[in-house]
Amino acid sequence: MSTAHPRLSINQATIKHADLATALQVTADAGVQSIGLWREPVNEVGLDLAARMLTDSGLRFSSHCRGGFFTLPEGPERVAALDDNRRAIVETATLAAAAAPGSAAVLVLVAGGLPEGSRDLIGARERVRDALGALAPFAQEHGVTLAVEPLHPMYASDRAVVSTLGQALDLASAFDPAVVGAVVDTFHIWWDPQVLEQIARAGREGRIASYQVCDWKTPLAEDVLLSRHYPGDGVIDFASLTRAVVEAGYAGDIEVELFNADIWAAPYADVAARTVSSFAESVAPHL
Amino acid sequence: MSTAHPRLSINQATIKHADLATALQVTADAGVQSIGLWREPVNEVGLDLAARMLTDSGLRFSSHCRGGFFTLPEGPERVAALDDNRRAIVETATLAAAAAPGSAAVLVLVAGGLPEGSRDLIGARERVRDALGALAPFAQEHGVTLAVEPLHPMYASDRAVVSTLGQALDLASAFDPAVVGAVVDTFHIWWDPQVLEQIARAGREGRIASYQVCDWKTPLAEDVLLSRHYPGDGVIDFASLTRAVVEAGYAGDIEVELFNADIWAAPYADVAARTVSSFAESVAPHL
Repeated sequence: MSTAHPRLSINQATIKHADLATALQVTADAGVQSIGLWREPVNEVGLDLAARMLTDSGLRFSSHCRGGFFTLPEGPERVAALDDNRRAIVETATLAAAAAPGSAAVLVLVAGGLPEGSRDLIGARERVRDALGALAPFAQEHGVTLAVEPLHPMYASDRAVVSTLGQALDLASAFDPAVVGAVVDTFHIWWDPQVLEQIARAGREGRIASYQVCDWKTPLAEDVLLSRHYPGDGVIDFASLTRAVVEAGYAGDIEVELFNADIWAAPYADVAARTVSSFAESVAPHL
Repeated sequence: MSTAHPRLSINQATIKHADLATALQVTADAGVQSIGLWREPVNEVGLDLAARMLTDSGLRFSSHCRGGFFTLPEGPERVAALDDNRRAIVETATLAAAAAPGSAAVLVLVAGGLPEGSRDLIGARERVRDALGALAPFAQEHGVTLAVEPLHPMYASDRAVVSTLGQALDLASAFDPAVVGAVVDTFHIWWDPQVLEQIARAGREGRIASYQVCDWKTPLAEDVLLSRHYPGDGVIDFASLTRAVVEAGYAGDIEVELFNADIWAAPYADVAARTVSSFAESVAPHL
């Protein structure tokens, strides 16, 4: 039997090319108790079958990735995006109910970047708030927490206009904490001079919906989206961040989510084993 | 005669491969009234000659780039870095005195990244504050403003542990605003949800020592340091940022500083002309 930390969850993106059946098997085989899923592999098999497979795996479900992309102006594309988010909410609720006890009905939201040709960052952020307002009642009905993920500011123009934990908490503040929370992802926020106080605030406000860990190092990958590393391979101080999250009261699963071409090219079992060992070395001692 | 805006300054990094004589000539020939210099080309000819050349050019001097790299731990390397900053302060004072009226004795400071092997971001930031304390009296004697430049968070690990304008202002707050100020550079801070309020604060606190403009667009260059573009070529809203800087009371020169391999490879006169026209189109209307 493996020595995987009981709170470790492998986010499926870490083994991006694995289908759902493979991802569940690799995760369980590594002795990991929890998994974060992505919509595409779930929808490849269909929600009902995915839910049964998750039940059969015995794993917990730590998050569903991902909804969002809320920055489009009014029009049919925005309507379609919100409808798609409603489907993601239903998926999240279904999967969380099907998975082992202790699962989290958390839908991770990536805000979206500036619409093509736009320079109106403030307007884009207002549309994110509006979209949360449009989806919150539906999420509440389904018992799902919408987890706004601040992304590193280098993604502000093309991926997420929400760039800091403080900003995510400001956006969430109009809503019930059970319905709108935030993701604390070390890669995205480690640099923030306010990170420790904002993690504490997130705890006080009951908004930490997910804690994700991976490392930062330079030079960045040519595609900066793929610059995420195993905990311990870079410069992030997992001690102070993890302690802050613990002190903020977060007691859920902790995902390792790695976007990295080299990791994606490695055998799944090797990746799972490295995920387990890097978590054990760099994160677990601070829990 | 050119139609260059009277407040436009070309930062020498925009024509990186030009020596000092060439940079002064290209700038003056483009009808630009002001230049920001870099230490290396100044020291190539020696400070005294550089000062005479600057006087002869008739240009104003808008900043000296750059000092800083303050995050080293105690030891001979740190002592050497502080000594080098004192030389940069003397250079700044000398050049500002030699240049046309309206020049600024402003030394731009880049904080430095994490020391090799370190994960102690908070400690590195404390050493920046200590270095400012060590240099401030010397800067004051020489009538030089130390301008802390927050750099984009994607440079936090390897270049500058100061990542937001708010953080730069917090660092500066222990010092006389004539001695320690901050650089407002659109490229580095455009994404910050607090950017407008922090620019206003910088104005209230008398800390805007320099305003630098260049644009952001994705995908980023493979070397992310070289991702800077002419104003108008990317997604930054120069209207709101420039108006905020004007309303904050900044009345000095405005530098265009471009790190970009394509721009560096172009003929200097073409680069100067594009700098003039892009400034006229994207920045000047908001002054």
